[in-house]
Amino acid sequence: MNIRVLFVRRPVGWVDESCFRIESCDEPACGPGDVLVQALWLSLDPYLRGRMNEGSSYAPGFALDRPVVSRVVGRVIESRNERFAEGDHVWGFMDWALRSVAPRGEGLNLIDPALGRPSLAISALGMPGLTAWTGAIELGRPRPGDTVYISSAAGTIGQLAGQFAKRAGARVVGSAGSDDKVAYVLEHCAYDAAFNYKTRDIDDALHETCPDGIDVYLDNVGGATLEAALRHANVAARFPVCGMISTYNATEDPGIKGLQQLLWKRIEMTGFIVSDHLHKLAAYQARVAPWIRDGEIHFHEDIVHGIERAPAALIGMLKGEAIGKRLVQVA
Amino acid sequence: MNIRVLFVRRPVGWVDESCFRIESCDEPACGPGDVLVQALWLSLDPYLRGRMNEGSSYAPGFALDRPVVSRVVGRVIESRNERFAEGDHVWGFMDWALRSVAPRGEGLNLIDPALGRPSLAISALGMPGLTAWTGAIELGRPRPGDTVYISSAAGTIGQLAGQFAKRAGARVVGSAGSDDKVAYVLEHCAYDAAFNYKTRDIDDALHETCPDGIDVYLDNVGGATLEAALRHANVAARFPVCGMISTYNATEDPGIKGLQQLLWKRIEMTGFIVSDHLHKLAAYQARVAPWIRDGEIHFHEDIVHGIERAPAALIGMLKGEAIGKRLVQVA
Repeated sequence: MNIRVLFVRRPVGWVDESCFRIESCDEPACGPGDVLVQALWLSLDPYLRGRMNEGSSYAPGFALDRPVVSRVVGRVIESRNERFAEGDHVWGFMDWALRSVAPRGEGLNLIDPALGRPSLAISALGMPGLTAWTGAIELGRPRPGDTVYISSAAGTIGQLAGQFAKRAGARVVGSAGSDDKVAYVLEHCAYDAAFNYKTRDIDDALHETCPDGIDVYLDNVGGATLEAALRHANVAARFPVCGMISTYNATEDPGIKGLQQLLWKRIEMTGFIVSDHLHKLAAYQARVAPWIRDGEIHFHEDIVHGIERAPAALIGMLKGEAIGKRLVQVA
Repeated sequence: MNIRVLFVRRPVGWVDESCFRIESCDEPACGPGDVLVQALWLSLDPYLRGRMNEGSSYAPGFALDRPVVSRVVGRVIESRNERFAEGDHVWGFMDWALRSVAPRGEGLNLIDPALGRPSLAISALGMPGLTAWTGAIELGRPRPGDTVYISSAAGTIGQLAGQFAKRAGARVVGSAGSDDKVAYVLEHCAYDAAFNYKTRDIDDALHETCPDGIDVYLDNVGGATLEAALRHANVAARFPVCGMISTYNATEDPGIKGLQQLLWKRIEMTGFIVSDHLHKLAAYQARVAPWIRDGEIHFHEDIVHGIERAPAALIGMLKGEAIGKRLVQVA
């Protein structure tokens, strides 16, 4: 018997489990040219919150009463397609289901076994990793001695971004929502300083941890953190923006105050979405896979077991309970 | 008898004439190495509003009971400095006074007579012109067929920026605060479309004038106009920001709503200040002076006569009553 997770109700404000329904369904049929995939890991990402809204964000909204879709790593269990063989590891945007068929294999990507454990294809060596690289290195352009400030430091992107900026010679400062996360990034992710934004006044904390000001701010959260980063920015700072999670559940937009600082300090603030940068993925993997294999870059996957727990795991991730990349291990 | 304009009171909100005092003063003495300059034109610029505040903006605040300072074009009437001769036209940051001394000639810049009328050194061929070029061309990077939207279209920067973007093959749309200004930029400044933001709903107007969306927004005003431009922006739009005049007199910052669009649409928003770009001024002048001389680029100077009228002329400019570059002609 197959099992899948449907999206059944659009949330207003915070998501809860009533937005989802777990149901049994038929086993998928594998027709000529098709590929049957056993899901192994489902990727949980903040942008999925935006897809639950009807209004347009940068990704199309989920349809009601249809399966949730995200990046999934799976194993080919039946192939009627010459590009894929039984046992291959693949990733693609697939339904949250134990088993799915990719018609004619479309949208499936083979995972090179040389890259390490297959789950990395949707975490450190996939789009989240490329996001961290694009933001922290390509748009942030940190120079040796620069101060790079990263919000959501213990998140999927923050973990890697901090280590990438550190390798570029920068001093790396992070904020996160618990003392455990702060301790984590200091111990494992090469951060020079970090603070708990829930228990500290953010201006005091930035004054203390970024005494020379901020040269690069990798924005994952928007809101009050972005406002504070504008206040503490140096002239010619770069602000790559890859997320504004503080606003994803907001029903009203309070606005960003102090944007005049962008002018006074000649700040370059650039929104980016990793799907525009996929042509760089192979080069990124070639560069970073050896660092992960050799332990030069640390990366933590927070694994939740069981497809039935996927909605709760997603909600918890949006509320900030995960450290590192949260995946649902299905099989 | 010399006359000068002092700054005597910091405004809260809108500036009024009580912030200034006109007084007679001694004729300046020209010592060894010094240069005595007869002021001809005083430059009125929106950023001067920021210098009236005590808090730091990008330029230091004016001291109380000291002369207002801005860019001034003058004629050398006595020189005890070998770099300058009587009759030379010069520009520099000088006091608002009929005559001033530049000690040791410091801060004075000779104006090349080949560039045309000397007032251009503080208007179309000076920093305002370089601001328009840097924003509309270097940071805006308009491509043929792009839609470039410019606020304060009839202002000093807007007049030139529109014509520069048009020469780059873009479709140019402007907004301004009166029907006269709208008619002006359509007739003289090569704008393809323009609207009066005081009498139109700005979303309706942008929908109508930018049917293919906005690829470049040159922001002079911030506030509600910036919010609307974010809503109408295309993916990968560039937003060079050279002014936020809508906030200069505000005592409270209402914040910018909808900044999430920066992420969704991968917008690059860059604050810039022309003083960072002065090394390009000579190249800019060499390129643009022939266009102005040959009438290929139109540029209007709005001349107010008499130093006594400088405060009123500045206040009126901040309130939007000028078309083009407002200068005070002193002599």
